[in-house]
Amino acid sequence: MKKALILLGCPESPSQTPMAVYVTYKLKKMGYEVTTASTPSAMKLLEVGDPEGFYIENKIDIDSCIEKLDKGTFDLLIGFIHKDAAVSYFVTFYSILDTTAIAIVFEKDADKLIEFENTVSENTNAEIVSARAFHNPTPLRVKFDKMIKKLEESNVI
Amino acid sequence: MKKALILLGCPESPSQTPMAVYVTYKLKKMGYEVTTASTPSAMKLLEVGDPEGFYIENKIDIDSCIEKLDKGTFDLLIGFIHKDAAVSYFVTFYSILDTTAIAIVFEKDADKLIEFENTVSENTNAEIVSARAFHNPTPLRVKFDKMIKKLEESNVI
Repeated sequence: MKKALILLGCPESPSQTPMAVYVTYKLKKMGYEVTTASTPSAMKLLEVGDPEGFYIENKIDIDSCIEKLDKGTFDLLIGFIHKDAAVSYFVTFYSILDTTAIAIVFEKDADKLIEFENTVSENTNAEIVSARAFHNPTPLRVKFDKMIKKLEESNVI
Repeated sequence: MKKALILLGCPESPSQTPMAVYVTYKLKKMGYEVTTASTPSAMKLLEVGDPEGFYIENKIDIDSCIEKLDKGTFDLLIGFIHKDAAVSYFVTFYSILDTTAIAIVFEKDADKLIEFENTVSENTNAEIVSARAFHNPTPLRVKFDKMIKKLEESNVI
């Protein structure tokens, strides 16, 4: 079974937890076994937002995850990025896993959004899905769906 | 079947959507039929955060809901409050429904939190669950659970 890892940093944005559920749901439907690595507060939000564990089955602390990580542990890496720390985590995980990756970059501030996109581009070959999203998850969801479709059609995932 | 209405305003806080799922889940387990009335962006977050509709079954736009509202339409009102507009909605819904109500008040700023609590207290007989919550939903969840237990034990709900 193909394995995907989702990275969640500090949950400042109201879109992050719902979008993490959506991305997990979508990847599971594509046949991936999905693990979510997150900071403690991001994990608490996932637990409260999915009390039966209907969507999010495998959760791990982001720092414990990095200790066990090796090339080939996961086939697909998806990172949620709206803070400097999340960029660093993503680049670190990417360099260890050395696999197909998507960075979901979102931030209210346009300059920061571009800064995060540039840092991801300069340090990885990850695909980038980005939007100035905060309240409304729709632009991110639509762009993510298009990216997944593109990668499926070109047999990358 | 007992009917509960959950009110969701503008989703500034990352805790709102996950907590709305949790409250719905908890009330359904207690035998309530739960309807969630929300602003358009809050509803989009609910849809993305529960793509199969496993938790949130009945959704309605907050303004459409108010038009159909009458005393007795719902047995329990629960409002999420972290903006002035949400206080106004809650007071309006409360005055029409005239039933058991819980205000879940959350805000990073301590002064605003007290201001919201005071406005709710001055205008309704609602029970109040409040916490300076933003990232971490646990204080709100724990206080909400205690309030539900108290109301169940005194046969109010």
